[in-house]
Amino acid sequence: MSSLLKDTDTAILLVSCRDQPGIVAALSDFLFQNEGNIVDIDQHVDIENGSFFMRVEWEIEGFAVPRDEITAALAPLVEKYDLNCSLSFSDITPRVALFITRDNHCVYDLLSRHESGELRMEVPLIISNREDLQSIADRFRIPFHHLPITKENKIEQEKRQIELLRENQIDLIILARYMQILSPLMTEAFPNRIINIHHSFLPAFPGARPYHSAHKRGVKLVGATSHYVTEDLDEGPIIAQGVTPVSHSDSVHDFVRKGRALEQSVLSRAVWLHLNRRTLVDSNRTVVFG
Amino acid sequence: MSSLLKDTDTAILLVSCRDQPGIVAALSDFLFQNEGNIVDIDQHVDIENGSFFMRVEWEIEGFAVPRDEITAALAPLVEKYDLNCSLSFSDITPRVALFITRDNHCVYDLLSRHESGELRMEVPLIISNREDLQSIADRFRIPFHHLPITKENKIEQEKRQIELLRENQIDLIILARYMQILSPLMTEAFPNRIINIHHSFLPAFPGARPYHSAHKRGVKLVGATSHYVTEDLDEGPIIAQGVTPVSHSDSVHDFVRKGRALEQSVLSRAVWLHLNRRTLVDSNRTVVFG
Amino acid sequence: MSSLLKDTDTAILLVSCRDQPGIVAALSDFLFQNEGNIVDIDQHVDIENGSFFMRVEWEIEGFAVPRDEITAALAPLVEKYDLNCSLSFSDITPRVALFITRDNHCVYDLLSRHESGELRMEVPLIISNREDLQSIADRFRIPFHHLPITKENKIEQEKRQIELLRENQIDLIILARYMQILSPLMTEAFPNRIINIHHSFLPAFPGARPYHSAHKRGVKLVGATSHYVTEDLDEGPIIAQGVTPVSHSDSVHDFVRKGRALEQSVLSRAVWLHLNRRTLVDSNRTVVFG
Amino acid sequence: MSSLLKDTDTAILLVSCRDQPGIVAALSDFLFQNEGNIVDIDQHVDIENGSFFMRVEWEIEGFAVPRDEITAALAPLVEKYDLNCSLSFSDITPRVALFITRDNHCVYDLLSRHESGELRMEVPLIISNREDLQSIADRFRIPFHHLPITKENKIEQEKRQIELLRENQIDLIILARYMQILSPLMTEAFPNRIINIHHSFLPAFPGARPYHSAHKRGVKLVGATSHYVTEDLDEGPIIAQGVTPVSHSDSVHDFVRKGRALEQSVLSRAVWLHLNRRTLVDSNRTVVFG
Repeated sequence: MSSLLKDTDTAILLVSCRDQPGIVAALSDFLFQNEGNIVDIDQHVDIENGSFFMRVEWEIEGFAVPRDEITAALAPLVEKYDLNCSLSFSDITPRVALFITRDNHCVYDLLSRHESGELRMEVPLIISNREDLQSIADRFRIPFHHLPITKENKIEQEKRQIELLRENQIDLIILARYMQILSPLMTEAFPNRIINIHHSFLPAFPGARPYHSAHKRGVKLVGATSHYVTEDLDEGPIIAQGVTPVSHSDSVHDFVRKGRALEQSVLSRAVWLHLNRRTLVDSNRTVVFG
Repeated sequence: MSSLLKDTDTAILLVSCRDQPGIVAALSDFLFQNEGNIVDIDQHVDIENGSFFMRVEWEIEGFAVPRDEITAALAPLVEKYDLNCSLSFSDITPRVALFITRDNHCVYDLLSRHESGELRMEVPLIISNREDLQSIADRFRIPFHHLPITKENKIEQEKRQIELLRENQIDLIILARYMQILSPLMTEAFPNRIINIHHSFLPAFPGARPYHSAHKRGVKLVGATSHYVTEDLDEGPIIAQGVTPVSHSDSVHDFVRKGRALEQSVLSRAVWLHLNRRTLVDSNRTVVFG
Repeated sequence: MSSLLKDTDTAILLVSCRDQPGIVAALSDFLFQNEGNIVDIDQHVDIENGSFFMRVEWEIEGFAVPRDEITAALAPLVEKYDLNCSLSFSDITPRVALFITRDNHCVYDLLSRHESGELRMEVPLIISNREDLQSIADRFRIPFHHLPITKENKIEQEKRQIELLRENQIDLIILARYMQILSPLMTEAFPNRIINIHHSFLPAFPGARPYHSAHKRGVKLVGATSHYVTEDLDEGPIIAQGVTPVSHSDSVHDFVRKGRALEQSVLSRAVWLHLNRRTLVDSNRTVVFG
Repeated sequence: MSSLLKDTDTAILLVSCRDQPGIVAALSDFLFQNEGNIVDIDQHVDIENGSFFMRVEWEIEGFAVPRDEITAALAPLVEKYDLNCSLSFSDITPRVALFITRDNHCVYDLLSRHESGELRMEVPLIISNREDLQSIADRFRIPFHHLPITKENKIEQEKRQIELLRENQIDLIILARYMQILSPLMTEAFPNRIINIHHSFLPAFPGARPYHSAHKRGVKLVGATSHYVTEDLDEGPIIAQGVTPVSHSDSVHDFVRKGRALEQSVLSRAVWLHLNRRTLVDSNRTVVFG
């Protein structure tokens, strides 16, 4: 997970395919023949399902293939091994939309990590179904779009959201405690590109008010789960999870308070992994090249 | 949770009642008037439900009331405040039955803690539905009762178990990875006196094969839960929980291996708390005077 | 640690004294006789050193003693048992000064928790030895005092700081990653009222650049420690600690990134405990009524 | 860290060398050309020091090179890239000696994991400087060597130990709470082949009685560290670490009790990693292919 070479621009290739002999050798050789200086390489074989996953990162400078010809140069390997490839470059900053409602802690945490340079992203807009947190957007001079949602206008408003996301060429949506369920319209428009933070240790306590349910059940740890959003609520591929201890003497309010730091931490970890192209989705699970 | 005074025998009083003014003052005063040297006192008020819970531990030596007259001496307070009291003495060692099946790690851990003096208990018998682990019982010279269970003989065998437990004056049953569901016959015979270890972070993954379910769901942490056994499977009051990180590169076998240490740790913590009378059941939750 | 009754104003009494029979009874009785409705009570006996500590919180409404006469009413008990008492009221909001330098994450986290109402405090000023984070103060409309520190002007500048703190009637100073060592001038002026966050698991890696030292040593967990500041650098009483896993593949930059969320979480927990009068200092250790 | 294919015998190659282009390609190609079915491959580049580390595991069955000719077949690569190689086979079980003193929990845990098949090792002897735990060796029918150590006889006894270790062809020594400091005689005879468990979060609290020191310092977490033993006490490369929460109400005895489960867990994790050839020592740090 080395991030020492902050100043070196790199190319990142994510590969998935059926497991078969010679893939690592072929891809390593491709980079070696073209004088690619590998700075990070990791792979995973899912033996049970016969799947192969790889992430390789190499320096752009000195690489024999110009960046807009890399895809073409890879084509023979793609064909031979039936690879699914995703190529990206560290100097092209992902564009991110934040969806928020009333809770301020996750959005502050993301924006402070953005400000400090830790999260390399641009945030051209914030969308909210309420006006409560407009002042945060104002403080950071980020355009704030208030799109209130009712049962009646949900689809219409999601269409407006998607329009805004397209206009702003958004690569990733972060639901930073956004208290609305997305319709398939949205989840299908951004597959594996919407990250949510759920305030429980999924699959325990899905749905609404998980801290209340956890308190009622008398658990001794509360959790948080960051996952890609799919059509099935709280069922998407998990990227990161964490827990923190609680006791009988904690009220629901204490659960909420103790959970906040956890939600921040788990969400920002998941976002960092995605922005650095360290996640791959394997059916309903993630491969995390951490 | 001080256990410094290993050599001092103490009386322990667990109290629960409706919350009302003056209880702490009344009980503290009772001990003070009788020259009880309090070594530990803790209480909890469940504000939502208006319940009061207290644990107080004091030295027997020097206490003005002989131990067999304490209950009578408390009677006026019990009546006045409608207290539920449970009195015990640290020098009366609880008698414990271990129920096991095939996995050896929890039983070894419990017996090693027993041997080292950490868990103050007697273990007059081990019961198993299989013969696999008989050698452990033999090594520790503990009588081993092999009572195989089938659908047909379940009730009959549980009756035989209860008979054995009664004969041996058992205070506590520990299901140390016992792979059988207890019938109401057993759970009603030993309310809040059967401790189980479930190999997941309940309420996630109840039932059989939780590591397999967790692996399938792609979680990033696996957990263990120790709880009192009630009629509803995996729904009893939770005493202790823990988690340990896993990743996409862990197989189900790795989940099992990583979970073992967790199961040991969580179960032994729960057993220690119970043996030291640090647990109280409040509807379906525990108050843990940790 | 119940905080259910957000709307009820309470009085909080912190007591420390030599352990002796009857204290709990006497204090409980005092509250009971005056119709004090106890919402939380906790005590701790340090058996080794013979010390007694208690925290009791009760509702102001309905209490028979007016709030400005409570101290006088307690005087006989104080004299009889030689008590050290500290009385405070939940509706009197502590005034807090933030000291910062270059790292933004802790200050954003504290201000977001303040904004959400979780941390009940007022922040009348921010002090920094650098100008880097002035924009944060501006965003939150908090007066920002830039007091650069050199070897030569250190004492002079600390005097200026103390002047500002006095003018603003500051109760608590939070060093939110303030990169200057305080002189005895400051630590003696605010004993047990300066909270620092150190980015290691103290006593491991005291002093400067702990992440670099941790990386060099090859640890598998990095930690954070929040403590009261004393004259001895990094030696003050510890309030809260946390850790997060790292591996050989993490660079120093990764240690820093992973540590950030931990620092936020540990510092805010310590600040919450202090603001809610849940900490007592016992020689060089804390009693935390968590 | 997949261990699904329990029944497949594998070859494991650990490689370290100066980082240079083409190594991954060359080694992958070597295996591919010889029809090696890779089941796990992982590598790490230490960018700062320009070092390269790799672990690759492949099935023996079907591999074109007989196992006793693999080293010769690798020779050209070894020469070209100046590789340090370590080759081993999963079906050759490491022979392990346990060193113990008085505490029983780690030795029981290791032996129970051995019995369950989790730790693939043979344990032909147990060595102790005291007689306290002889009964454990007897129960598991493992030869027990009582070699008491005094200042005067230390070197002599270590020579006797080394003799026993050589006679029993020991590959790995586990200090399972062995309360003696090894002399250079021993550490030089078994470099990176002695694993210790230290009952603190190193580098905090090295040396004797770490729980007492931790209690005195008032820490809020206690830790355990498993490391390779070098000549410098408690300074060897760290393999695994863990922590568990404690509070002001825990006595030193409670620290000890809570630390036990941690010591077991951390030691067994380190031993599993070593037995599965998942550790490499890089100057004074470990690379852990977890």
